This record gives sequence, structure tokens and C-alpha cells, in this order.
Amino acid sequence: MNTDKQMRRLIELGRREDTPYTCMILAADGEIIALAPNRVKKDADATSHAEINAIREASARRNNKDLSGCHLITTCEPCPMCASAIFWSGIRKVSWGLSIDEIAALGHRQISLRMKDVLADISAELQVEEGVLAEEVKALF
Amino acid sequence: MNTDKQMRRLIELGRREDTPYTCMILAADGEIIALAPNRVKKDADATSHAEINAIREASARRNNKDLSGCHLITTCEPCPMCASAIFWSGIRKVSWGLSIDEIAALGHRQISLRMKDVLADISAELQVEEGVLAEEVKALF
Repeated sequence: MNTDKQMRRLIELGRREDTPYTCMILAADGEIIALAPNRVKKDADATSHAEINAIREASARRNNKDLSGCHLITTCEPCPMCASAIFWSGIRKVSWGLSIDEIAALGHRQISLRMKDVLADISAELQVEEGVLAEEVKALF
Repeated sequence: MNTDKQMRRLIELGRREDTPYTCMILAADGEIIALAPNRVKKDADATSHAEINAIREASARRNNKDLSGCHLITTCEPCPMCASAIFWSGIRKVSWGLSIDEIAALGHRQISLRMKDVLADISAELQVEEGVLAEEVKALF
């Protein structure tokens, strides 16, 4: 997979919304069915991470909690909350720019568990792409 | 802590809403500031677990993402999504009835990570109460 084009759109959204955390979900045919920034501050809601918002948006659009076959693309590796939401949604294809360790090194507090550790139960089903336009994502911080 | 009374209220809500998963959040003074069932099917949203719903409700009520000092009580041990939401919300006091292993043994699919494993980074700050009215919670399944 090559997700540079989608990541560029996420980086633009991050600049516009003043957050390094943005996420999109593609349907199996490549259509964007959700595009969301982190809204933790805006919504005063600790659960309002970009991935959670995108999963909710995609499910609302489809009126279906099952997003199997979709592809989630996010600027930063999903935290354990978002990794688990991916599990529950049925999404098994995930791309990101910066890893949790790289985000933590930039001074943003993280839970120190990688997505692969949270989703060890389904490691055989997961398709993961890491480091997409990592330097450009880093510039959002 | 003795949370039998609160757990009874959660069990009643579970019966009424036809779900074994219900959650409440108490403010530091004991006031109930959120009370929510799992609404995954109803909302067609994989993220609509009882704990996530309760955290969102409590934050909306207070217009504050920070729920430090609050106590989360839930029928079933928080899954890694909800455990991480607890982390991000600042809640450090958690009570539940059945453990993840007990829920899994009842045939409900789970991510096989205990809350203590997800929240190992803050284990020293966590207050956990397990097994509250476990048999009565089990009867909801």
C-alpha cells in the first residue's frame, strides 16, 4: 500500500485544526468514509481521540458497528484505547506516521504499550504500515 | 470501599437495558455524575461501551475532560479500550464485578489483556476493587 496522498491530507487537516492527531477511514473501494481530528480539548472529552472520532463517524455514516474491510490511516500510532477500538470495529488494516515511542520522545504523554502488544490476539490478521511521511507528521508537533 | 449499593443499581440498569455491561461514575463526594449502559448495538457503534459512555457523560456534565478524583464502578472489568479511557480521564479508582477472564469464560469475546496490564505505567496510583456482587452480575449474561 502507498498512503502518502492520504497522509498529506491528514497533515493538512492537522495544520488547520492545530493538532498533530488526525485520522481517516477508507472503505474497501478506497472512498474516504471518515476524516477527523483529535477533539479532546474542543469537546472537553478525554475519549475524543482522532481514531475514536473517525470510527464513530464511519459507523454513523454506515449505520453499522462493523467496519471490517476498511483501512484506518492516522498520523500517529493508535494508543491502546484506539487500538482496542480498532479491534472492536473489525478494522484490520492500519497505517501511521509516527510511533508511540516517537510521540513520547516529543514530550506527549503516552501509555507505553504498542498497538501490536494490545492486539497480540489478532496479530495474524493485522496489516500494518508504519513511518508514513514520518518527518512531515513530526513537524505538526 | 463498599460499592454493593451502587452495583445493585448497575445490575438493575442492566436488566432494564438488556445488557450485562453498565457503568457509573461518582464524584469525590459520592454524587452519581454518570450512569450508562453499553449501547454498541443501539448506536451501531463499536466504541459505545458502558465505560466510554459514562466518561463522556461525566465530562459533558462537568465540561471538563479531567475526571481526577472520581470513582468508576462497572459491572465488568474494563476492556483495554475502556481501561485506556480511564487513564486519559484521570480516574484512578475503579470497581467491578466480573473479571475479563470470567466474561470470556461466559462466551463473550474479549481482548486478553487485564486492566492492570494496560495500566502498568500507573499501577502505583490505581485503587482497584474486584468481584463486587460477581454472582449477581453473572446472572445478567
